Amino acid sequence: YTISSRISWISDIIVVVSPENIETMKTIIEKYGHKRVTVVKGGITRHRSIFNGLKVFAEREFSNYLLQKPEVVVIHDAVRPFVEEDILLEVVMAAKEHGAAGAIRPLVSTVIASSADGCLDHSLERARYRASEMPQAFLFDVIYQAYQQCTDYDLDYGTECLHLALKYSSIKAKLIEGTADLWKVTYKRDLYAAESIIKDNLSQQIFVITDMKEDAMQAGFLLHESLKSQIKVEVISISQCKNDIHLQNMVSEGCYNFIYIYDKQSSFQETQLLVDMLEKSNITLSYPVMLILVHLNSSENISFSIGMEELTSIKKFAREVKKKNIWVYGLLIHYK
Amino acid sequence: YTISSRISWISDIIVVVSPENIETMKTIIEKYGHKRVTVVKGGITRHRSIFNGLKVFAEREFSNYLLQKPEVVVIHDAVRPFVEEDILLEVVMAAKEHGAAGAIRPLVSTVIASSADGCLDHSLERARYRASEMPQAFLFDVIYQAYQQCTDYDLDYGTECLHLALKYSSIKAKLIEGTADLWKVTYKRDLYAAESIIKDNLSQQIFVITDMKEDAMQAGFLLHESLKSQIKVEVISISQCKNDIHLQNMVSEGCYNFIYIYDKQSSFQETQLLVDMLEKSNITLSYPVMLILVHLNSSENISFSIGMEELTSIKKFAREVKKKNIWVYGLLIHYK
Repeated sequence: YTISSRISWISDIIVVVSPENIETMKTIIEKYGHKRVTVVKGGITRHRSIFNGLKVFAEREFSNYLLQKPEVVVIHDAVRPFVEEDILLEVVMAAKEHGAAGAIRPLVSTVIASSADGCLDHSLERARYRASEMPQAFLFDVIYQAYQQCTDYDLDYGTECLHLALKYSSIKAKLIEGTADLWKVTYKRDLYAAESIIKDNLSQQIFVITDMKEDAMQAGFLLHESLKSQIKVEVISISQCKNDIHLQNMVSEGCYNFIYIYDKQSSFQETQLLVDMLEKSNITLSYPVMLILVHLNSSENISFSIGMEELTSIKKFAREVKKKNIWVYGLLIHYK
Repeated sequence: YTISSRISWISDIIVVVSPENIETMKTIIEKYGHKRVTVVKGGITRHRSIFNGLKVFAEREFSNYLLQKPEVVVIHDAVRPFVEEDILLEVVMAAKEHGAAGAIRPLVSTVIASSADGCLDHSLERARYRASEMPQAFLFDVIYQAYQQCTDYDLDYGTECLHLALKYSSIKAKLIEGTADLWKVTYKRDLYAAESIIKDNLSQQIFVITDMKEDAMQAGFLLHESLKSQIKVEVISISQCKNDIHLQNMVSEGCYNFIYIYDKQSSFQETQLLVDMLEKSNITLSYPVMLILVHLNSSENISFSIGMEELTSIKKFAREVKKKNIWVYGLLIHYK
């Protein structure tokens, strides 16, 4: 559902949803600020739902406003959340040339046919077959005409759009090798796998922000040295960070992790500024942003109670900004 | 690899391993105390490896000691770690009746055949086909004769044992519907999924152990009340726990989580006893055991430093027993 903001060449997104979930879907679209999205009521089978989605471009009765008919339409499953722009572009370009195209993957298990008594009839040679995945793309007229001509049996029991294009529009779809991440989130274990992929993606980059004091810059440098073999690290000063363009670059690269190292007694203003900038950037809409505040303190006469006071105020601040999907952690380091 | 200890009716387990991993495998078998396991060198393809494994029962040259030829042999993939006794028994019984049997699952994606130019040739009707999974079982002579007769092409490019039984022994395998947990751990995401399934399984049960003081028993009762809707909880007293048979029951039910609530000033002896019993039970060989020590303290004149001393000694104790795969956590609660 972040496809529209990521990919500028997609002009409209039709989300086909079962009737009981339409309100929830509209709430989600509103909440995350998705643009160019039209919600359409699904049918009782896969093909009937897809057909409903296509009608928005062709039949006035199905939409309050008829959307401009596209040259190429992409069909995708919401249960394949990790689709990349590369493969979308590939299937679209192949569909322009061949009329239809779809992502495929090697078979993980051998496929067999069973006889009526539940015994093996024959097995397929694994190397000759492929699993048909999504996304698929079609010249709009090719797939729409196929749906208009296909039988009720197709609509009720069929599962493969490429098959309809072949059977009713005589189009042999181009098959494009997709990545493993296109798999279908089907079982409970797939939710765990999906969560781990998201966490992996979010922890690829970190920005270390320092104030201009020597100790903080030194700490930032050491952190960079020890982390750079594992993840992408960039160190910038807080004054660079105030430059909006710089922050935009950071954000557009998909960075969700920030460490601010400072040794001033009171750097609350800067922290607030940082939070404001992160909030304005809209990245917090999709995923939580981590902000770790590290206060290096070398003053000799600091008391235990002053340290506790500082941590308490960070805790209070963290509780506030968590509502904005920014998770603040505080670390107070005393050293000599 | 814990199959042998779980399932008594399996007489021998042959583990086929690539040459470079044989030593590692032997170390694992030794470390975890697996019985009835023979390690055999794998071939360069799936079928050649399986054939090597079968030869141990039939050809003296392949083994230092010829193992007793079984009536039925089960073939399984190590990459399907969550196989249950139920399905093993089902395929074995079906193999005794039909000569061969194998687990199947519904297809998640449509299967298609591509033409030489990388375009769709035809798609298979998803409902008529199944994914062939493991475990599979065979009358030993059926599968062994099939391997003896099959061609080099089969050995190099084939993937399906049921196919060999059909082609060379004319046996139509019985197909048995398996559970979703039989899937093949193939991609990195599958490792995350497997980890989550193991964690889920380990956190299904908890035993709360209390000493006989009223406060501890009361706390155990309240914990039971608040947890019982989510996981299986049993509360027992430390004296019941000293009864070896009771502990054996707890362990055989697959419990890996223990909370010990006490209000005596020094209960170190009981804790040590608990750790000894857990260690003796061998459950720590497969997975870590969690033991949370909760000391309820209501004495008025306890000082901060005495509390810290107690936590420090728990920390030291925890470091020791972690080597035995028991993870100890300490919680000290002061109340009036």
